[in-house]
Parts: sequence; C-alpha cells; structure tokens
Amino acid sequence: MATLVNPVELIRKKRDNGRLTAAEIRAFVDGFLDGSVADYQMSAWLMAAVLRGLDETETIALTEAMLHSGEILTLPSVTRPKVDKHSTGGVGDKISICLAPAVAACGLAVPMISGRGLGHTGGTLDKLEAIPGYDVRLSARAFERTVRRIGCSLIGQTSRIAPADRRIYALRDVTGTVECIPLIVASILSKKLAAGLDSLVLDVKVGRGAFMKDAAAARELARSLVRVSRRAGTRAVALLTDMSSPIGWAIGNANETQEAIEVLQGAGPADTRELTLALGAEMLRLGAVTKSRRDARRQLEHALADGSALDVFCRMVEAHGGDPRVVDDPSRLPRASRRVAIAAVRSGFVQRIDALELGLTAVAMGAGRTRADQSVDHRVGIQLAAKPGTKVSRGDPLAWLLVDGAARARPHIERVRRAFAIGPGRPQLGPLVIERISK
Amino acid sequence: MATLVNPVELIRKKRDNGRLTAAEIRAFVDGFLDGSVADYQMSAWLMAAVLRGLDETETIALTEAMLHSGEILTLPSVTRPKVDKHSTGGVGDKISICLAPAVAACGLAVPMISGRGLGHTGGTLDKLEAIPGYDVRLSARAFERTVRRIGCSLIGQTSRIAPADRRIYALRDVTGTVECIPLIVASILSKKLAAGLDSLVLDVKVGRGAFMKDAAAARELARSLVRVSRRAGTRAVALLTDMSSPIGWAIGNANETQEAIEVLQGAGPADTRELTLALGAEMLRLGAVTKSRRDARRQLEHALADGSALDVFCRMVEAHGGDPRVVDDPSRLPRASRRVAIAAVRSGFVQRIDALELGLTAVAMGAGRTRADQSVDHRVGIQLAAKPGTKVSRGDPLAWLLVDGAARARPHIERVRRAFAIGPGRPQLGPLVIERISK
Repeated sequence: MATLVNPVELIRKKRDNGRLTAAEIRAFVDGFLDGSVADYQMSAWLMAAVLRGLDETETIALTEAMLHSGEILTLPSVTRPKVDKHSTGGVGDKISICLAPAVAACGLAVPMISGRGLGHTGGTLDKLEAIPGYDVRLSARAFERTVRRIGCSLIGQTSRIAPADRRIYALRDVTGTVECIPLIVASILSKKLAAGLDSLVLDVKVGRGAFMKDAAAARELARSLVRVSRRAGTRAVALLTDMSSPIGWAIGNANETQEAIEVLQGAGPADTRELTLALGAEMLRLGAVTKSRRDARRQLEHALADGSALDVFCRMVEAHGGDPRVVDDPSRLPRASRRVAIAAVRSGFVQRIDALELGLTAVAMGAGRTRADQSVDHRVGIQLAAKPGTKVSRGDPLAWLLVDGAARARPHIERVRRAFAIGPGRPQLGPLVIERISK
Repeated sequence: MATLVNPVELIRKKRDNGRLTAAEIRAFVDGFLDGSVADYQMSAWLMAAVLRGLDETETIALTEAMLHSGEILTLPSVTRPKVDKHSTGGVGDKISICLAPAVAACGLAVPMISGRGLGHTGGTLDKLEAIPGYDVRLSARAFERTVRRIGCSLIGQTSRIAPADRRIYALRDVTGTVECIPLIVASILSKKLAAGLDSLVLDVKVGRGAFMKDAAAARELARSLVRVSRRAGTRAVALLTDMSSPIGWAIGNANETQEAIEVLQGAGPADTRELTLALGAEMLRLGAVTKSRRDARRQLEHALADGSALDVFCRMVEAHGGDPRVVDDPSRLPRASRRVAIAAVRSGFVQRIDALELGLTAVAMGAGRTRADQSVDHRVGIQLAAKPGTKVSRGDPLAWLLVDGAARARPHIERVRRAFAIGPGRPQLGPLVIERISK
C-alpha cells in the first residue's frame, strides 16, 4: 500500500471532489485492513465521501473491494439458480422466514445471509433464534449442504464474510457517516453478494418505520442497489414498499416467527402474505422459473397452500438444530407470561399506526437492541389488535403488550396508545408495493 | 463529556451544515484530550469542518478551546505592552530575528513563540539554533525574565502550550484536513495568544512561495485572523505581503541568521529591511508607541542605525546561552565547506525567481525537513547572486549552493537554474506590501 498510493492523497482527492479509480479504492480498503491506512484516515475519507458523494463506478469498486476482503461462498454443488432477498429493515418485517422456504419450494436455491435487529428495526436472526435450538452459525460446508438438499438456509454473517465492511461499518456508526447512499449500497451488497448469488431482490422500505423516510431517497437507494448489483454481475430488481405502518400484527421475535409460520400454513395477515408473494414472484422471475408474474404468484400460492413451503421450512429448522414441532405447537416458542391490553380511548377508524414508535417501544421492552453487543428477549413484544382501516369502539383493544408482569408494561402503554391515530372516516390506504425498480 | 454531549451528534451537526455552540466545541476539544472523543471521531469532524466551514463564532470558540487546553503565559512582571508578529511562512523569511530586537529597542515587549521549518518553508527556531549555544527552550520563568529585562525573547512552543492544537494538527497532517482557513486561524492564534499578547501583527504571505498561492484566499485568511484575534481580546493588523520571490539573498539557516544580523547592523537586503520596517511600524502603532506610521518607521530606522536594536539582539542571544560574538565575527556561524556557483546560460534581466522551487531545493539539500521529526543542517543553503530586476550576462552567477563538496551540489544545480526566469526587458516589480488589513 505504502509504495502504491499515499492515503492522504486519496483523502484529499475525494475532499476536492475527485473520482477515485478502482485500483485506488481497492488499495485504500486493503490498506485499512492491513493497518497502513489508520482508522482516523478512513473516517476522514468516509466523511469526504458522505459530503462529496461516490459515483456509480466508485460505489462498485468499493463494493467489490469489501466483498473480496473476505470469503465468497460459491456453493459449487448447488445447481439450482441462487437467488436471495434483502430488506433495508422495518418494523414487523418477518418476510424472510416465510419467503425463503416458499421460493425454495418452487425450485430455486435461497442461500440467505441475514442480520440482527439494530435500532428500531428487528432482525431475522433474532426471530429465528426464538425457535428452540435453531443455530444461525452453520459452517460453510453445512450451509452449502443445507441449501443443496433443502433449497434454503438462513444463517448469520460470519467473521470471514466481508471483514472490511464490518470494520468500516463499526467506524461509520461512531463517526456520523452512516447516512450516505453509496456507502449503504456498498455495505449491503458486499455482504449479500458473498453468497455467490445469481439474482437478488431488494425490498427497499420507505416511510416512518424505515431508514429512508421519504420516497425520493428510497428510490435513489433502490436504483443504486439495482445498478451496482447488476454491474457487479448479479441480476437485481427492487420493490419500493410502504413501511409507515408495521407489517403484520406481530412486533417482537417469537410472535413474529409464529406469524411467519402462519403464512407458511397458507394463512397469516394479508399484508405479510402479499409482500411474500410480491417479493417471491420477483425472485422466481429472476431465477427463470416462470416468465410471467401471474404464473409466479400462482406457484407461490400453491406452495403455501399445499404444505410444500412449510415442509421446506421444517426441514431447514431441523438442519439448523431447531425444533420443527413449533409449527404445530406454537406453545413451544418462548412466550411472555402476560398480555396487557391497550384500549382505545375514543371510537373511530384507525387512520395510521406509527411504525417507528412501535419499533422503538419494542426495543425499550427488550425485544431489540440499541447497541450491537446487547442480547434480546425473544418473548416480549407487541401484538396488534387493530390495523389501519380497522373500526374500533372506545374500550376496544388496540394492541397487547407481551410482558412478564403488568408492571413491566406500564412505561410503554401511553406510548403505544399514542402511536394509533383514530379518526372519524374510513382512511384511504396506500398501496403496499409502491413501485418496481428494475434499472 | 459523555454525559454532556454525544460526539457523534456533534459530528453529524457539522456534517449537516449546523453551527456548533461554544460549549459544544469546548466539550469536543476537551473530550479529544481526555480520550472520550476518539482520533477517528475528531478526524471525521475535521473533514466535515473543511467541507462545511466554520463561521467566525465557531472559529473563536475553537481557538479559545485550544488556547485554554494549555498554559497561558500572562507574564505579569512585564509592564511594557506585549506585541508579537506571526508570519504564515515563506522562503528566506528571517524577519522575526531582526524585527523582535528592533521593536524591543523602541520600547515594546516582544514575547515571541516561534516555529520550525516544515515543507518548503523555513522556521525561525532552526535559524536561531545556527548560533552556537542558542537554546530555544527557556523555562516560563526565564522567558518572562528575559522579556522583562531585555524586551524580547524568541522561544519554541513547549508541550504545555496549546496541547490540543498540537494533537489536532498532527491528525490534520495525515487526514487531508490542513487546507482550511478556520482551522488554520484557530491553530495559529491558539499558539500565539498563549503568550498573553496585547497586540499581534500578522504577515500573511501570498504567491508561489507561500501556503496561500492566490490573493483572494490570503486576504480571507488575513481578515479572519484579524477578526478572530480581536474578538478573542488581542488587537491585530495584517499585512498581505508578496512571497513569489525569496526574501533577501539567503535561503537556509546560518546564512539567513547572518543576513538578519546585517539588517540589525543597519545594512542588509532592501526587501528584508523594508519588511522589518513595515511590520515593525504596525507593531509600534498597535503598542501605542507612536501615532503615525512615519514616526514609527523613523524610530525603527534609528534603532537599526544607532546599534540599539543590535544590542538587544546580543543580550537576548546571551540570555539564551548563545554566542553573541557571531555578530562581529560571522565565521563563528556554522558554514558549509563549498560555494558552488550556478551560472546564467543566457543574458538578460531576471524576471522572476520561483521561491517554491528554491525552498524545496533547500529542503532537499538538508536545510529543512519534510517530516516534523527530522533534524536540519544549519550550514547548507542557497545564496542568491541575483534578484528580480538584476541584469545578468551569460556566465554570471545567479546563485551559489552552500554545500560540503561539489558532488553534493550536482543534483540541485539544474533545478536552481530553472527557478530563475531570464528575459530581455526590465521587469515590472510589484509592491512588497500588497495590502494592509485592519478589520
């Protein structure tokens, strides 16, 4: 590194609005890993990148440099097309848990590397770990075998996948350099592409409960994800989906896993099922299982109706050491001792539910974490009793808090109540899938 | 710090173009010193400050936070008005060495904390150390006594003066955050004001041999220095001076000190003498010694003519343990064994001399340093034989390289020759003092 490029020159180049070459970005990332670029130099460069931006070529170079900093799981023995889904994070988003088995049941391979909850959003790994025995840490060999035999496997990021992203993200988190689309794109894709995917569907969430609060920024993120992914050799489509209200009726961990199982059983909340079908249809089309979206949806509906998706799920749970009996007996999932009802103080229609406030409340209850090193309580959470459009009478329950003892509920009751906006008229509800972005 | 402000919030505030309060800046600087703000957080903030800017109130707060991070020498026993000069750095700039004694001879106190050479510019401390025995490290008590008894003392920055500036500057140097007027202003003033000054004259250099290559940026720096200094309680005036050609005929260390002594003897190069008089006149007026610039110049001319300035210099050298006999016997200064002449290859008038190139050549010869931990060779340097406007014939010397053996000169000869632009007509020479900035 030292002989090739001077880190200060690369920082100054970005500071002065220059474009770095792919070789320069690779040298800078490699230097950061080998210690010749110091933390304080990386953070100065990151701030310059936040304020000056990175163009698409620079973003691709950064993605590839971080991707190649670690292991890439090529899964050579998996012959089916490999396709995955990534969500930018929301409240009540348990889609991966029902989506991966459904898509696998339709003939694709879904090698899914998932994340944990942080801030107001939940994480798929935390929800899966609510299943007794489920181990998210499979060896690379066991992961490949599970994907080959069963069609899908949901694991956590190992320390060998994209170590540069992990170190850079830790630095971004404490230097005010998180909010930057090119850096977000490179971080997401460097981890996702490490599973050696053929295709990737992106669920870019927008609204109060999402990281991107406004549609323009979410659209920019979605477009960049699609373009960078394609230029890195992985076909991609993004759906912009509404994240102003929570997804489904469950917010937490064990209760969200239970809700995902209900979808796999052919039931479940309408929005959760709809997102599963919409995202799954894109995956089947990218994986060339069907040519039309209608056919793709029909195949997925069959897989949910005939038990084949549920069967894939049970076999995957077993392969991960988990107890598949949770499917038929939800009482095997950890469960809080009390359900404390929160009643409506007026009658009317639920106009909106503030997903951000409910997400933050769930974290405060112990279902999520504010720092990466915290553990979560799988049992606690919020169970909705009404959704936008529901007509409620004064005294009707709006939600239940899942807690150990009524005293634990008290600090959260008013906050949850205020998250429900109740008004006289039936609200106009917007579409769940706002836009499809394919280029 | 941790309970008062969150460092990430302060970084984000500047990133998002916000203005930090004085309390926030103080907390951030204090946190940096006590370790609760990490290097990588300071460097991210510095990059945000470079790209977003700091307004005058923030610059004052930063200056004062860095100033108060260390010792402030109030020099209570010094009853004369305390006035100092700071130069932003140039090539051949030995003015402090003749200016401080001349101003002290006129009745003011000059407690001058000087710097070392870095990059293409020389430093007063390196030049003074060419005098056998001269110690730039006096105790605070000895410094105060010297200023009280003799009128001036030129010392180096101690580790107790503005430690925050020293640590922040070290970080700026390796993170591409040097080039930023508010950060430059805070760095300069936090060190200078630590001498408890009543007034400060700023020599802001502009041109090829200066840090500020263009007049607009130099003017902005000068205005900011004057305004921030005043708002911090120290009267200030700045002169914008030309730094396209070297100052005087000597570039190096021992040869520059000898040239400064010549000015103190009432002789010396015209430009060196003129700068001494112009800057000194501003100091005398700020110190209320005289009311008019003409009277101030006359007093300074007297002090140079009647030996009183030279006498102050000799007494100061003695107080610092140095050998004052160098004044009458320049051979007591260290001297290189060879003078290698560089001849003009054509006849004509010297149009320009590239100060930057000569400064860099002197560094390459060993007279300066590229890293702060290097030592310098006091003997080597460049002695000019022609200045802009000099008429030369082919074969006439343009300059001499002061070296130990002709072989040592060889790598530098062509570079020095090319630094002289020779043309047919007599050049139009611009003014030495370009502008006076008092608000």
